[in-house]
Amino acid sequence: MKAVVLFSGGLDSTVLTYHLINQKAEVKLFSIDYGQRHQREISSSRMIAKLLNLNHSVLELPMIGEILGGSALTDTTIELPEGHYAEESMKKTVVPNRNMILLSLAAGHAISLNFDTVAYAAHAGDHTIYPDCRPEFADSMEKSLNLADWNEIKLYRPFVNLTKEELVRHGLELGVPFEKTWSCYAGGNLHCGRCGTCVERKEAFELVGIPDPTDYN
Amino acid sequence: MKAVVLFSGGLDSTVLTYHLINQKAEVKLFSIDYGQRHQREISSSRMIAKLLNLNHSVLELPMIGEILGGSALTDTTIELPEGHYAEESMKKTVVPNRNMILLSLAAGHAISLNFDTVAYAAHAGDHTIYPDCRPEFADSMEKSLNLADWNEIKLYRPFVNLTKEELVRHGLELGVPFEKTWSCYAGGNLHCGRCGTCVERKEAFELVGIPDPTDYN
Repeated sequence: MKAVVLFSGGLDSTVLTYHLINQKAEVKLFSIDYGQRHQREISSSRMIAKLLNLNHSVLELPMIGEILGGSALTDTTIELPEGHYAEESMKKTVVPNRNMILLSLAAGHAISLNFDTVAYAAHAGDHTIYPDCRPEFADSMEKSLNLADWNEIKLYRPFVNLTKEELVRHGLELGVPFEKTWSCYAGGNLHCGRCGTCVERKEAFELVGIPDPTDYN
Repeated sequence: MKAVVLFSGGLDSTVLTYHLINQKAEVKLFSIDYGQRHQREISSSRMIAKLLNLNHSVLELPMIGEILGGSALTDTTIELPEGHYAEESMKKTVVPNRNMILLSLAAGHAISLNFDTVAYAAHAGDHTIYPDCRPEFADSMEKSLNLADWNEIKLYRPFVNLTKEELVRHGLELGVPFEKTWSCYAGGNLHCGRCGTCVERKEAFELVGIPDPTDYN
């Protein structure tokens, strides 16, 4: 497998990267700066890519926020909700059609590199608020990717039915340096510990029963 | 119907715009500067939007060419092929996964505007070299768009089985100002008359049997 990995520098896509290396896949990391409030994740992505000595591209698309208004992740005038992902208020963190946009860019990059696969780390915990993390979305996108070029592009999403807890367990087996990954949406230099993704991260370490290596504010 | 139209300022998407107006749809025009050699089409898109007094956004994504290498449309070091679209050499004008990228951005914009539809003007003449203009690709993308958000986004592609000739006939009935549309890929200020899209444009006017209003170099 030759895979372009949608790589945010977060916990999920870092576990995915280790998973692919473990499977002896050829890996190209691909990150996108879409004007997200939490630019800090881009620095994490660079650090982890360097640590693994992997080829990595960061595409700068800061203007994209102009046409995708209404998300607290790209519009700092909208207050970032705190609490659990399952809460209704978290819908403010949805960036419209983000995954299709990111997957389509990654697939274009894969085609230009003659790679055969795009990999992304959507997991079961995402489904309650992010429509574009659902397995049926991923299945349909795979069919679209198969037809986007004369050669089939595959969509690899091995975690789509895993919980965050299972994902952390898997990362533990693979030796993932969790402390180097970045989850927080709030835009600070330390994890805030209160936004949806921080709450989910904390909870996963607790459920697995290992010390949380994250520095919180 | 409230439709975001993928609008290049070319003949096809201009006929589509007139078609939607004729159907009393609410229309938002959406153009993307992806670093194409033929920037001139962006000026045409602005002129036509103004003429029709339609809301129009142009998203600037010039960096995208960095990850989509290998197309003569975005890389000026690759010679632009001349001749008929059906020829093998025209594959050099394929921008990897362009339509999925453009459709996904248009859909994100539609979701943020609370619109229900994305419209694009792929037609039968495109199928021989562009995999992402095939009806089966459009059908699959519609399913993916249906699932990308909690509300369904529809994909409207009324010309997917029309030839360019039929498209020009339809434009003629609708009063499309063909002379204001831009097709040429070569990047000059007048149409070159020799690249694939110029050859197809000329041929369509001939087949319909009307004078070609285009100024050629």
